[in-house]
Amino acid sequence: MIQQRIHKIQASLRGRGLDAILITEPSNRRYLSGYTPADHGIQESSGVLLIPKKGGPFLLTDSRFELQAKEEAAGFRVELYRKGLSLLLKTLLPSLDVKRLAFESHYMLHSSVGRMETVLGKQVELVPLTGLVEQLREVKSEEEISLLRASVRRNEEVFQQALGRIKTGITEIDLALALDTTMRQHGAERPSFDTIVAFGANAAKPHAVPSNRVLQENELVLIDMGLVLDGYCSDMTRTLFHGQPDSMFLERLRTARKAQLAAVKAIRAGAVCRDVDQAARQVINDAGYGRCFGHGLGHGVGLAVHEAPRLSPRCRKRLRAGMIVTIEPGIYIPGWGGIRLENMAVVRDNGCELLNEDTTGLDL
Amino acid sequence: MIQQRIHKIQASLRGRGLDAILITEPSNRRYLSGYTPADHGIQESSGVLLIPKKGGPFLLTDSRFELQAKEEAAGFRVELYRKGLSLLLKTLLPSLDVKRLAFESHYMLHSSVGRMETVLGKQVELVPLTGLVEQLREVKSEEEISLLRASVRRNEEVFQQALGRIKTGITEIDLALALDTTMRQHGAERPSFDTIVAFGANAAKPHAVPSNRVLQENELVLIDMGLVLDGYCSDMTRTLFHGQPDSMFLERLRTARKAQLAAVKAIRAGAVCRDVDQAARQVINDAGYGRCFGHGLGHGVGLAVHEAPRLSPRCRKRLRAGMIVTIEPGIYIPGWGGIRLENMAVVRDNGCELLNEDTTGLDL
Repeated sequence: MIQQRIHKIQASLRGRGLDAILITEPSNRRYLSGYTPADHGIQESSGVLLIPKKGGPFLLTDSRFELQAKEEAAGFRVELYRKGLSLLLKTLLPSLDVKRLAFESHYMLHSSVGRMETVLGKQVELVPLTGLVEQLREVKSEEEISLLRASVRRNEEVFQQALGRIKTGITEIDLALALDTTMRQHGAERPSFDTIVAFGANAAKPHAVPSNRVLQENELVLIDMGLVLDGYCSDMTRTLFHGQPDSMFLERLRTARKAQLAAVKAIRAGAVCRDVDQAARQVINDAGYGRCFGHGLGHGVGLAVHEAPRLSPRCRKRLRAGMIVTIEPGIYIPGWGGIRLENMAVVRDNGCELLNEDTTGLDL
Repeated sequence: MIQQRIHKIQASLRGRGLDAILITEPSNRRYLSGYTPADHGIQESSGVLLIPKKGGPFLLTDSRFELQAKEEAAGFRVELYRKGLSLLLKTLLPSLDVKRLAFESHYMLHSSVGRMETVLGKQVELVPLTGLVEQLREVKSEEEISLLRASVRRNEEVFQQALGRIKTGITEIDLALALDTTMRQHGAERPSFDTIVAFGANAAKPHAVPSNRVLQENELVLIDMGLVLDGYCSDMTRTLFHGQPDSMFLERLRTARKAQLAAVKAIRAGAVCRDVDQAARQVINDAGYGRCFGHGLGHGVGLAVHEAPRLSPRCRKRLRAGMIVTIEPGIYIPGWGGIRLENMAVVRDNGCELLNEDTTGLDL
């Protein structure tokens, strides 16, 4: 699997007249090597792949990661840098006859490129490139889809198990903590993003951060959660009502669910991303909440929790079979709260395959 | 406090003939604004500060963060971008008469700079700058030192509470999870880095990732943990023995502790960073473990868990009073395991003030 991916990259390099590429983006690195560590921020890389246009690839890292690199990145030659990446490249590139070196412009700091230019001098031409590996990653193999399905299912199990914790008096922080703990007890590597738990008016922020707010009787509860299992991410949002739902909550929940179903209907291979967004957005507009839905409808999910494609009002790309997207319409009203419903789906030739169970209990 | 920091930056801009600076690095952003969200990776920024050489500063973000930005960043004008930072800047900069705009080259992607250049055109000169805010952050005020002391103490409390969990049969993952959960129950925002728990030979990796390895009788246990409290990070490593410590463990532990004490003696305002590293390294070399200590002795800690200064064999900077550093000598032996002891200290005029209690129980 990994070898096939490397071969595709190498063919692409040869087609572009490039001698090698540096892979710095962590999900791309894992996709092409099996090497699992996350970066502690872009300034503290766990390693970089150097893939020449032919021949065996290299994993460049520092001594802290040597053992893990050798264990995980089968087929890669591990080289250690002691004084930074640029100096290692300066000794390594001539032996590989690399004159044109591509780098991931979208995951390389401006200052790091400057440093490489200074150290490597005129003998190596640095060529910015974006999206080469991301394009490969957009369409998932059935093996990857199985891993994503497992991640989604595990996430739903965690959610179900934590439902019993939603009681008057619990804080947002404690509920988020219970979710995170349950994820890890269920074998997740980590949450795929900072778990969002928001009660009542706090849910008006699409990216609310859990606070010490205490749950009251008759408040809405928004939970946006995902986990990483075998490298693959899940992402799901549920909005519940703690108590007896009032008619305003139900109307808005129904609107969000209708918008979600409209998008589900619109998704198939060949559909334009922004048309899918519009299908959901129209429902929200028609209900009078057009100004209350400020973000795009969804995004791709895979090794990264946010990846291509984007279901946004501006994206003119067409969906392809094997892509995975979230469908997450929202209605946010300052002072009142927010509704968001988010499921994941696989794009298929004639429609889509939902990875999540609906739990709204609405009969639409 | 924040206003003084802004004024220092503005004076520095005027001194360099710059009209404004974009602050993208998350800890710098928090330091200068009080705006707390972390970034979900550099590709998903929670916002950017625009600080003109005089007049009020701006916080540029998207609608997801609008409420939080307005709540937290007092004195900042919040502007929202809908179609990316560059287009907002294109409309905002002329009204501020900005012709020379600095940006943080060490926290701006190569591709983002390219995009700004394209959108802003020739009317704005982009000037790469690194370290302006980081330099301010290196020396902590007594108020910041109090926050760091509180973070360290909280971290020690969490460690003490979790000690009871170290029992034959627990896995590295479960012990790490217990630590993380206890951190959050004790009010931490989050761990300041991925908690490291390594048993036996796993501890030979300085950045070991917790695994399903089960703790056996008579194994060493390495724990490297830290938390974020009110924005400020702690970072501490302890190496224990589960069972009756053997003489090899004790000899290596003693060597690491002696190295740590040698560094403590060497730290004072004016000391050169690499001399402090060398003081510890010499002890380890003399004991015959020179090749088993592959990383630097320590690093600064503040809003970021790894910041300037670096106590490394290459750093020629001098320590200044009010800097905070870790002192973390290590001995790593593949197949056997590893020892690391890490405490934090404040650099003072005539020595250093340790923020951690020693828990090795060694009488040296």
